[in-house]
Amino acid sequence: MIRYITVKSRSRTELINITEQVQEAVRVSKITHGLCHLFVLHTTAGITINEGADPAVQRDMVNFFDKLVPNDPYFTHAEGNSDAHIKSSIVGTAKTIFVENSRLVLGTWQAIYFWEFDGPRERRVAVKISGDS
Amino acid sequence: MIRYITVKSRSRTELINITEQVQEAVRVSKITHGLCHLFVLHTTAGITINEGADPAVQRDMVNFFDKLVPNDPYFTHAEGNSDAHIKSSIVGTAKTIFVENSRLVLGTWQAIYFWEFDGPRERRVAVKISGDS
Amino acid sequence: MIRYITVKSRSRTELINITEQVQEAVRVSKITHGLCHLFVLHTTAGITINEGADPAVQRDMVNFFDKLVPNDPYFTHAEGNSDAHIKSSIVGTAKTIFVENSRLVLGTWQAIYFWEFDGPRERRVAVKISGDS
Repeated sequence: MIRYITVKSRSRTELINITEQVQEAVRVSKITHGLCHLFVLHTTAGITINEGADPAVQRDMVNFFDKLVPNDPYFTHAEGNSDAHIKSSIVGTAKTIFVENSRLVLGTWQAIYFWEFDGPRERRVAVKISGDS
Repeated sequence: MIRYITVKSRSRTELINITEQVQEAVRVSKITHGLCHLFVLHTTAGITINEGADPAVQRDMVNFFDKLVPNDPYFTHAEGNSDAHIKSSIVGTAKTIFVENSRLVLGTWQAIYFWEFDGPRERRVAVKISGDS
Repeated sequence: MIRYITVKSRSRTELINITEQVQEAVRVSKITHGLCHLFVLHTTAGITINEGADPAVQRDMVNFFDKLVPNDPYFTHAEGNSDAHIKSSIVGTAKTIFVENSRLVLGTWQAIYFWEFDGPRERRVAVKISGDS
């Protein structure tokens, strides 16, 4: 069974912490031990797991990516968002996280982020929890 | 059970749409609900999910990556393809996609691409479909 | 069931081949056909699959990444390791590898690497093996 998390971004590029929403999807599934699969259904966004404590890290990450992949004038895609597509392929749209005792298994500093590269928009992340066989 | 998709690249760097071949592997598996795991068995290629509509996006992606990771003269690997290895680690060689009603669950604009970084060559992508428990 | 691989890095940035330790976790699990899921429990490290033969490739990869993501003075995170967080999101902290006949299914040249971006430290990689249903 697939559940969907809705994410609303407010800037063109932005990291949005979705850890609580993913944890809630795990709880609702009633699966205690297994895997939590996440999949972003868009081509100009991604999903990443990184530090959840200091907001300065998120700011540095977003700023660096915007500098690493600028919206260069040599791009040919008429929609003008090739930079967002490229960032999506660098970060990736799929991640798998472990589940133990009905909780996501994350390191002390880890949080799950939806990474918006072409907002602001409303977005969807698909979630599937599979139990240990 | 593992199935293999064969991909033939015609350039050194190239995005090849393999969505139909992956969908065919799902159909043949007879699994209606579950997960489709993909794994590239090479160190100078990758797999990514990105826009399948406008070919200009693919062109911009390939060109940008070639600019981002040039074949710099300071590389020490004698085979001269360190740029291809680096691109492979940026894009990744493994992806997991959801399956529902015998169909890959992809967003409206998403397609699955094999990314050749050191072609032209014949390549192999391993596919495994697992059913919901 | 989750097993943990311990990795000790000796430099700030370093690729550490953990293929044998992952293969050992597969053997101990007694699962012959399925999937091996890996997850790095840190925000300044990653996991990648790349060439295991020529050490020059690993050297080129590490050096290129250090050049691609320098520790720029405009970073605002007080701990001074934003470059390591960014590299972690580029490479990723989760990978899934196929298992067949109790062996990891890897291409001829592929090895599994833990990528340290902010060492030297002792690190942990979570491993879960799931059997084919």
